[in-house]
Amino acid sequence: MLRNGATLVLGGARSGKSRFAEGLIEASPLDPLYIATAGAPGEDSEMAARIAEHRARRGERWRDTQAPLDLCGALERHAQLGTAVLVDCLTLWLTNLMVEGRDVLAESEALVETLFQDRFSPVVLVSNEVGLGIVPDNAMARAFRDHAGRLHQSIAARAGDVYFVAAGLPLKLKG
Amino acid sequence: MLRNGATLVLGGARSGKSRFAEGLIEASPLDPLYIATAGAPGEDSEMAARIAEHRARRGERWRDTQAPLDLCGALERHAQLGTAVLVDCLTLWLTNLMVEGRDVLAESEALVETLFQDRFSPVVLVSNEVGLGIVPDNAMARAFRDHAGRLHQSIAARAGDVYFVAAGLPLKLKG
Amino acid sequence: MLRNGATLVLGGARSGKSRFAEGLIEASPLDPLYIATAGAPGEDSEMAARIAEHRARRGERWRDTQAPLDLCGALERHAQLGTAVLVDCLTLWLTNLMVEGRDVLAESEALVETLFQDRFSPVVLVSNEVGLGIVPDNAMARAFRDHAGRLHQSIAARAGDVYFVAAGLPLKLKG
Repeated sequence: MLRNGATLVLGGARSGKSRFAEGLIEASPLDPLYIATAGAPGEDSEMAARIAEHRARRGERWRDTQAPLDLCGALERHAQLGTAVLVDCLTLWLTNLMVEGRDVLAESEALVETLFQDRFSPVVLVSNEVGLGIVPDNAMARAFRDHAGRLHQSIAARAGDVYFVAAGLPLKLKG
Repeated sequence: MLRNGATLVLGGARSGKSRFAEGLIEASPLDPLYIATAGAPGEDSEMAARIAEHRARRGERWRDTQAPLDLCGALERHAQLGTAVLVDCLTLWLTNLMVEGRDVLAESEALVETLFQDRFSPVVLVSNEVGLGIVPDNAMARAFRDHAGRLHQSIAARAGDVYFVAAGLPLKLKG
Repeated sequence: MLRNGATLVLGGARSGKSRFAEGLIEASPLDPLYIATAGAPGEDSEMAARIAEHRARRGERWRDTQAPLDLCGALERHAQLGTAVLVDCLTLWLTNLMVEGRDVLAESEALVETLFQDRFSPVVLVSNEVGLGIVPDNAMARAFRDHAGRLHQSIAARAGDVYFVAAGLPLKLKG
């Protein structure tokens, strides 16, 4: 059941998290909108192939848009009454912000403010859990883990439902 | 309780997943068979030490065999009525297939077909969850994560029971 | 609810595990004591910043001590009746032992013995789950994963409560 407000879906690489999130939205009668955070210039072909695969899986009902950086703007513009929004995924959005040298903490706070305004359209946010391996050698990767972990905590603290997906199976952490 | 059909046991490195899986099999009255996916030529001494430790832990009741590549064949030959099979582990099998340049997707599909034929002997499959760290730099490691995630999803979708083990403690994801 | 004896709190980087563990202790009427395993000579500024942040978050009630290596000694000296102890974190303690060339298995066993003596003061142990990414290239990192996994299993087998924290949300594995 898709709940009003924000739902967070965490999972590892190839965990089935996107498909699970799509299913939450498709089970609702609302008009589904897909906001991809992919689409930054310079993205590689692995990413393009993955996007095409996700698009093929989703049906005709879905509208699509891309927001590699301006996720708040896309939510403001598109998340009107009667729509159910899927954002896929937050970790790629954080990567794009870091690559562009943006103030990631400020942008993360702005996203959380936008998400938890009074609104009626449910938003499901997909994100990668990346903090369960060995500490990376690379300072950029450590900063990325910190940004992702902080954002997940901020959203999870206020989200209605939070899921952790492994092997395609959801585990409910909250809700 | 060990269920007929396939059971998937996921966990991290040194999570206690093999020991938990052994316990599932030992609690059944069936004859336990261990199929190791270790044993490929060129394996290192770390692996040999780990195999010896696992073997010492298991009791006299267990029969052992090795299937570094031909896991389907080993299941066909050995998983007869009255046997409970432990496969340890799928991630090493995927590694072996990749090293040998096999068609991993095709072999993964064949494994899933073999597992979910009508059969009476329970099969417990142990595998490493490897997708919860930072995206690896290395394309081979990313491909490996994808293969593992896809195979886990395919098996979990049809398995009776799925567990995630952390610190030796099982969390039931399905069943 | 904080239980007598040991409680293990596992989680990834920036998962909110320390904050959750602090909350367990603050909800009890006992005098809170913080044992940091940070403080080894040569620690970097990232670590110092993190320690300062944790200290600022905890209130005036807390006493603080550091035990980068002699964790058993610190527990023996400080964990007297009427105290609730937070150890943050075991993975850093294991790192310190490895850097100093100590016998990590022996020290881990000694810690488990100390923790599970008859004692009245609850001890909450925070640790990073590090085994859910790709196998590290580096033998030291693999040895570290093994040490951490083994120690978590030994403690979890005897602990009253075990939690896994993701996105600030606890999942109870035992208790």
